[in-house]
Amino acid sequence: MSLLKIAQVPPLTVDPNATVLDAVRLMERQSVGAVAVVDQGQLRGILSERDVMLRVALKELNPRETKVGAVMTSEVETTPDDVTEEEALTRMVERHVRHLPIVDKDGRLLAMLSMRNVLEHQVDILSRELHSLGEYLANDGPGG
Amino acid sequence: MSLLKIAQVPPLTVDPNATVLDAVRLMERQSVGAVAVVDQGQLRGILSERDVMLRVALKELNPRETKVGAVMTSEVETTPDDVTEEEALTRMVERHVRHLPIVDKDGRLLAMLSMRNVLEHQVDILSRELHSLGEYLANDGPGG
Repeated sequence: MSLLKIAQVPPLTVDPNATVLDAVRLMERQSVGAVAVVDQGQLRGILSERDVMLRVALKELNPRETKVGAVMTSEVETTPDDVTEEEALTRMVERHVRHLPIVDKDGRLLAMLSMRNVLEHQVDILSRELHSLGEYLANDGPGG
Repeated sequence: MSLLKIAQVPPLTVDPNATVLDAVRLMERQSVGAVAVVDQGQLRGILSERDVMLRVALKELNPRETKVGAVMTSEVETTPDDVTEEEALTRMVERHVRHLPIVDKDGRLLAMLSMRNVLEHQVDILSRELHSLGEYLANDGPGG
């Protein structure tokens, strides 16, 4: 299964010249913890909750006057869409990131995968399995 | 297995009267995404990266002048230590939180469990299983 089925497609993006305040407003409205920073179609970085805490609040910068490009994480881990959810999750845990932009073979940004996307899908699968098991036991299970 | 074996014990705590700037400095030094807010031995709330982004940066408050107690999340999900890692993780995913304070039966704070604690432990278990499988196949596996 392609990761695109559980990721955010299209991803939320901001320009490096946007202010941190505008980026945070977008994140709040869309209930996400990170946005991709894109300039002329190219992925330049990610701005995450952690960046806002450590590079804006901790440094006592004014979010209204600070550009996203100045505080984003620019060394971004990306992933193709054809790895498994387990591989993507393991990679996020090992690299200490909660978001992986999904890119095509030419490096174009397709989607944003969050740890939450993967975990919610796993919980959803588990819930459906438990529901099926419950129905089996109620209807035609052993001794039924 | 008790969740205390993978959680942060003792947990990092701050006073509600501490400033957000001091709390963020503590989080940065300890590389964590949230701290427990404790007053006179009682758990009063959690301050997380998300709180700092949405209740400080977004509201254009000054972290040096803002008290933790004014912007923390005070409705806190907690857990006893004797649930499974899977249960704790499922609860975090369903409630949209990345941290669960672990409390004893009298409500005293024992530790802080993060989503990362659980996932890193799961990845660790998986890595050791793969390593054992590799050794088995190399040494005395089928056809060996």
